[in-house]
Amino acid sequence: MKEPESLFLPENSLGIVTDLYQITMAAGYFDQHKQDTATFELSVRHLPKNRSYLIAAGLEQALHYLTHIKFSTEAIQYLRQSPVFNHVSHKFFEYLKNYRFSGTVHAVPEGTIVFAEEPILRVTAPIIETQIAETYLLSTINFQTLIATKSSRVVYAAKGREVIDFGTRRAHGPQGGVLAARSSFIGGCNGTSNVFAAYKLGIPAVGTIAHSWVMAFENEQDSFRKFHEIFPDNTILLIDTYDTLAGARHAALIGKKLKCVRIDSGDLLNLSREVRKILDAGGLPHVKIVASGDLNEERIDDLLRNGAPIDSFGVGTEMVTSKDAPALGGIYKLVEREHDGEIVPMMKFSEDKLTYPCRKQVYRAADKNGNFMGDVIGLEGETIPGTPLLMPVMKEGKICYDLPTIHEIQGAATDNLTRLAEPFKLLKDAKTYPVIKSKGLEAKRQEVEKLLRNINVT
Amino acid sequence: MKEPESLFLPENSLGIVTDLYQITMAAGYFDQHKQDTATFELSVRHLPKNRSYLIAAGLEQALHYLTHIKFSTEAIQYLRQSPVFNHVSHKFFEYLKNYRFSGTVHAVPEGTIVFAEEPILRVTAPIIETQIAETYLLSTINFQTLIATKSSRVVYAAKGREVIDFGTRRAHGPQGGVLAARSSFIGGCNGTSNVFAAYKLGIPAVGTIAHSWVMAFENEQDSFRKFHEIFPDNTILLIDTYDTLAGARHAALIGKKLKCVRIDSGDLLNLSREVRKILDAGGLPHVKIVASGDLNEERIDDLLRNGAPIDSFGVGTEMVTSKDAPALGGIYKLVEREHDGEIVPMMKFSEDKLTYPCRKQVYRAADKNGNFMGDVIGLEGETIPGTPLLMPVMKEGKICYDLPTIHEIQGAATDNLTRLAEPFKLLKDAKTYPVIKSKGLEAKRQEVEKLLRNINVT
Repeated sequence: MKEPESLFLPENSLGIVTDLYQITMAAGYFDQHKQDTATFELSVRHLPKNRSYLIAAGLEQALHYLTHIKFSTEAIQYLRQSPVFNHVSHKFFEYLKNYRFSGTVHAVPEGTIVFAEEPILRVTAPIIETQIAETYLLSTINFQTLIATKSSRVVYAAKGREVIDFGTRRAHGPQGGVLAARSSFIGGCNGTSNVFAAYKLGIPAVGTIAHSWVMAFENEQDSFRKFHEIFPDNTILLIDTYDTLAGARHAALIGKKLKCVRIDSGDLLNLSREVRKILDAGGLPHVKIVASGDLNEERIDDLLRNGAPIDSFGVGTEMVTSKDAPALGGIYKLVEREHDGEIVPMMKFSEDKLTYPCRKQVYRAADKNGNFMGDVIGLEGETIPGTPLLMPVMKEGKICYDLPTIHEIQGAATDNLTRLAEPFKLLKDAKTYPVIKSKGLEAKRQEVEKLLRNINVT
Repeated sequence: MKEPESLFLPENSLGIVTDLYQITMAAGYFDQHKQDTATFELSVRHLPKNRSYLIAAGLEQALHYLTHIKFSTEAIQYLRQSPVFNHVSHKFFEYLKNYRFSGTVHAVPEGTIVFAEEPILRVTAPIIETQIAETYLLSTINFQTLIATKSSRVVYAAKGREVIDFGTRRAHGPQGGVLAARSSFIGGCNGTSNVFAAYKLGIPAVGTIAHSWVMAFENEQDSFRKFHEIFPDNTILLIDTYDTLAGARHAALIGKKLKCVRIDSGDLLNLSREVRKILDAGGLPHVKIVASGDLNEERIDDLLRNGAPIDSFGVGTEMVTSKDAPALGGIYKLVEREHDGEIVPMMKFSEDKLTYPCRKQVYRAADKNGNFMGDVIGLEGETIPGTPLLMPVMKEGKICYDLPTIHEIQGAATDNLTRLAEPFKLLKDAKTYPVIKSKGLEAKRQEVEKLLRNINVT
């Protein structure tokens, strides 16, 4: 009988967690003795719908990947036997045996605000190595950046109230839930319901009971009382299993030690008001109200504008899938290659998919209070005022960067958001933050495009 | 210096890949000597936007999880030290040391079409075990079912033409890409670009070159010629790096051995027509045209209705994120518990979130040609005509089910889709497939609701 397959990522063979064309191209480059150094940059072509900025995230897992990428003997054997590699020399497969990533990486630190077209990551390495890494790097950084950004919007809407990630069950697979817990914390969440994520990351794990606990007892009062006996300092009771207001009355019977009640369904505005009255009338003004159930930034904003007395929000599906904009279109493009010791700038100009050549840097200007005024995407080394955002994180395959803690990353994101003026971060109709390209970069683009058109468009 | 954290799922401690409240409830049940057998059912409350059916997927990974769930010593130590567990007896943590799943599971086989409210999975076990498994089971089945369903729509639109999953880079993390490759194959795709998924699953890996290959050579012709030298039998050339029509002419120079050309940008309808003309004029009518770039079922349908001469579609972002409906609202609800040898039916009736009590079965009626006519959700054991969909897959913690191959699962999905009449699977404005609840189930629901309201709504 067949054993069930986990499909967990293969720690001993991360090299094959990639698109096939990366490996066919690698074999091609190898055959052509093309070990020229190439530079690729990862950026997002357009901001997704409803987004006016992005919060860069996922670098730590990208660096884990780059320092662990290799090919197992079995994986190499699999490739070798694939008909597509029929005419590929055995030397290529020998080469894969000792494959390691040996390149240099620059990146924008996690938690930094970035905008469309700004490079978030830059990889310089022998072209085979830059190529094979593309798929994994994109998938890691696309997803975490997507969720950190979404989470920051939810946290913004909550205006200082607590926001907890409740999303694992609706995330794109269990691993997606773990990454979403990390990136939503970066975006400003206060904790997660995901125990493994909380454990590994050292962030707060949150949660107490579900409807099933209430249903497992003869009646609701009983279920509340028993829970309080076992968790006297952490009695957060879910009160909507049968009837929210009856539930609130039953919860109030716990007395002063009751910590929170949670409402997970119905008209949260009216229910929270009625529940608040019941708690206050019961002499429990300190007991907090947690709301959950299909919440997102708009609904939270709506609730709070209408004065809902909610102290904490549990946000799941909408946040961990970034439901209104569930994909980030990050791209990873060849911008430069070294050939016979000479640096050749590269670009493509497929319709609507033009890319800019050369190694770039993002220069961010700020006023005297530190508030962001505008960015210039320029050539690396160009003299442009402002703070450069990309910094070296890996050199010759080794990390050369003191990885920040998750709390430091969250701090950076919060700090960045504070420096971004209100109009640029409104939930709706936000103003477009000014990002321009430097004259040097525009000139380079024109020069390279002209040259490449002459050669290729005939 | 801190090492980068992978956040890969912990194979030796899958027990903590769950929501904290599952573990606090488990500790509570343990303290209460509540080892009553409980039954939970997993179903989808409403079909997502634009969906008229679902294709069940993810069972194999769910069974992997259930047969491997345990708690590592370190994870138990972490829980024990968490302030929330302050008052929990050390016996609970001792219990976690030898924790295994010992329950019985019924499920709808992967590849089966299901509808809203129909149980896809049913778990019967000591209540602690049913509870801890909730989060992981939901996340696994929600995501794969979401993508298998989306993929089946894309494949339907392609009307027999090849569809390949190109999505890993935009999936929700690298593991999400692997699961998406599996589930999109179940939905009818012909292969994936994801090498690891193809390797593990034994499905076709597809792909040849990216823009960077073209850019890495002096000119496009050169890049095409060199690629053909190394991959003479698998020459699929990407022709839109600089100019699609010039690219088509350059590709045609390869001659008869050219296999395909791929267009990844621009107006795919007009470009595919012009490219077809160039290829035909070059005596290459056998060369196929692959299209990619932000495709989904609507765009494919549009292209083909307008007669685009496209032979194969590479579909990424839209499919692997199910972009128009990126989350499946699967729920996992207590329907029954055994107490002192007696079976007590359970339900909740939170506003808009009513659940039905008792172990259920789905009975599917078919006409004499095997075409599906309608489903009845009834009580298990009720005498209702039709084929029951849920079958035993695990007994006392052991798999009692011959796991089908991925090709068999895809075959089942294709067969199910054939049996679903056209009006129920239209891409837009599909008819609602008839699903009703049995009289026995409705009567049971009324009886239980009345009883529980009397006890709890006071």
